[in-house]
Amino acid sequence: MKRGGADDAFGQLLWDCHRGADVAELIELDDGYLEVATTHCKTYFSDFEEWSVQERTAIKFARGRVLDVGCGAGRASLYLQKRGLEVWAIDSSPLAIKVCQHRGIKRAVLLPLERVAGLGTARLDTVLMFGNNLGLLGSYEKARRLLPRLHGLTAPTARIIGTTRDPYVTKSREHKEYHRWNRRRGRMAGELRLRVRHKKLIGPWVDYLFASEPEVRRIVAGTGWRVERIVRRGAEAQYAMILEKY
Amino acid sequence: MKRGGADDAFGQLLWDCHRGADVAELIELDDGYLEVATTHCKTYFSDFEEWSVQERTAIKFARGRVLDVGCGAGRASLYLQKRGLEVWAIDSSPLAIKVCQHRGIKRAVLLPLERVAGLGTARLDTVLMFGNNLGLLGSYEKARRLLPRLHGLTAPTARIIGTTRDPYVTKSREHKEYHRWNRRRGRMAGELRLRVRHKKLIGPWVDYLFASEPEVRRIVAGTGWRVERIVRRGAEAQYAMILEKY
Repeated sequence: MKRGGADDAFGQLLWDCHRGADVAELIELDDGYLEVATTHCKTYFSDFEEWSVQERTAIKFARGRVLDVGCGAGRASLYLQKRGLEVWAIDSSPLAIKVCQHRGIKRAVLLPLERVAGLGTARLDTVLMFGNNLGLLGSYEKARRLLPRLHGLTAPTARIIGTTRDPYVTKSREHKEYHRWNRRRGRMAGELRLRVRHKKLIGPWVDYLFASEPEVRRIVAGTGWRVERIVRRGAEAQYAMILEKY
Repeated sequence: MKRGGADDAFGQLLWDCHRGADVAELIELDDGYLEVATTHCKTYFSDFEEWSVQERTAIKFARGRVLDVGCGAGRASLYLQKRGLEVWAIDSSPLAIKVCQHRGIKRAVLLPLERVAGLGTARLDTVLMFGNNLGLLGSYEKARRLLPRLHGLTAPTARIIGTTRDPYVTKSREHKEYHRWNRRRGRMAGELRLRVRHKKLIGPWVDYLFASEPEVRRIVAGTGWRVERIVRRGAEAQYAMILEKY
């Protein structure tokens, strides 16, 4: 992927935001549905105090050498780096990594989760998948490949800390329609295929998984990880999850 | 156009908003540029107190029998109707007209500006083109056809009250690029070709003119109308204009 290429819509959004704009993040689903994913891109630059309770609770489980997967503008990495942890921030967007570097993140690397083995760090203690980035596990099948791989790259006491959204917590007729369409084509209901749109830029299609608690438990089973803790808040769709090795 | 058809993206946005949603209005330019036109669709439902100073000043020039061109959710029509004026609200969006009818506008008619002669009312005293709807004049050529037509449908003391945006009041690199592209293809800089996107719906392409004060003066000259007054606020792009017959 070229640095700041025509498909780095997400990175350009972050870069524009870093330069002072505060616009919405727009995503397009593969059924043509267009929506505002994030009203203010500044959310990607938010401080700890502005995060959801779920995230503020979950981040406390981070320790040691941390991999921040899909780091975006680096809000979680910055928080942990300031607290003295060794953070490796990775993202598949060239401009996201540039933003992270500009913001002072010491180890920001252009790398998609699929190629994390190429990072060549010593054993990781924490894998962080914040901002619903458990979704980057992509699908049942992809998650079943990636979770064992993360198992191999991490220390015996390592944790995965992530957030996702329960897709069934929605009142949107269109979201429910999309779930049904997904099932008909053999995908999980919350297995979104989406791309970011920003100005004239169109991002690459990405599979991004929203999954309920039982669905995540089924995905995790037998991968070397177990669900240690779930952090929910009332009936909110977003929840955090701490996985540990067994 | 079918009532609530697949191309009534704008109307569906207003209808969803009328039913309680508050989402952004998204527009796409014909160069592929996608942007948030209105952060909150509730803006289309706003009361007088929430309008710009330009609009609050300009609306006071309305009197008699009023044609509200591109009425949207009918905010201006409702305001004038409550003050006892006879308001005819027209829009080319079937669902916009449905929203107006639900909101109690007595004379809301599905009709594009181009077919305004078909309305068959007695002589109009005021033609209102609010919410930047002077833009519905579309282009230099189209405006030169429409303004004399409006002249013929209106009383001798009639006024056109409208707002538009000065396209040159922008810092956006992309907007400036679009202006240059427009000039290269023989259009005025601010002659936007755009369509509304809402969820899966894609509106029809519409020519929508943003013009500076000198440009509007050039358009108006010799059409039977003269610029009676301009209402600006500081260096803001939006301005209002009162046209009268001469």
